[in-house]
Amino acid sequence: MEALGRQILVECYECNEEVLNDVSQIEAILLEATRASGASIISHKFHKFSPHGVSGMVVIAESHVAIHTWPEYAYAAVDIFTCGDTIDPWVIQEHLKLCFASRNTSAMEMKRGMFKVEEGQKLLFKPENAARFGE
Amino acid sequence: MEALGRQILVECYECNEEVLNDVSQIEAILLEATRASGASIISHKFHKFSPHGVSGMVVIAESHVAIHTWPEYAYAAVDIFTCGDTIDPWVIQEHLKLCFASRNTSAMEMKRGMFKVEEGQKLLFKPENAARFGE
Repeated sequence: MEALGRQILVECYECNEEVLNDVSQIEAILLEATRASGASIISHKFHKFSPHGVSGMVVIAESHVAIHTWPEYAYAAVDIFTCGDTIDPWVIQEHLKLCFASRNTSAMEMKRGMFKVEEGQKLLFKPENAARFGE
Repeated sequence: MEALGRQILVECYECNEEVLNDVSQIEAILLEATRASGASIISHKFHKFSPHGVSGMVVIAESHVAIHTWPEYAYAAVDIFTCGDTIDPWVIQEHLKLCFASRNTSAMEMKRGMFKVEEGQKLLFKPENAARFGE
């Protein structure tokens, strides 16, 4: 079986509350982390909630990065969904963990879109799919 | 333990390929499903890939709904991340399954942001958090 995508669900506890409540910092950190992974950013949108909290989504050619923060609990939920072998989603997780000064982070990786393939073959990187990773 | 959020990861296999490749249909279906759940839409963004595939993100006051489609495999990956008790994320899953004519759908629900609370207490719906669900 081969997977079309990988999704990393990251739980960042015991973070710096000020960072988690600052929409411009969250935006800058997420975009920087996403670029550092080698992903191609297509669009992004960040929102500040009242009285606290930030939600943000970065659509990448390889899928998405999403964040929701609860500064009042020093907690952020992050999803990193990627496809293809060209980018390393764990780079994003490491970057965020550091920038949020999280003292307690856990993460799990899920495989998405499982298909049976011939031995030695891959689902992705068939030439006709290559354009997906451009735009 | 109480969770701040719930996330439903939906795998839609054996879908209608034409629907999965039509960005305007995907957008309409996702927005309709999200509204049907009672969620408040804050922003949304959909992208068509070449030669095929659609990615879309809907930011809601209660978190997000995201989709990535691979029409060439008749497959769509959907994430529904919600917080609060006011909306039912499973309404979205049911709606999408029907609209994509998926003959093979699986879904799992994850709890996000786990905290210990006093007996009989809840993490959410403290008055000071209520505004989160507005905008």
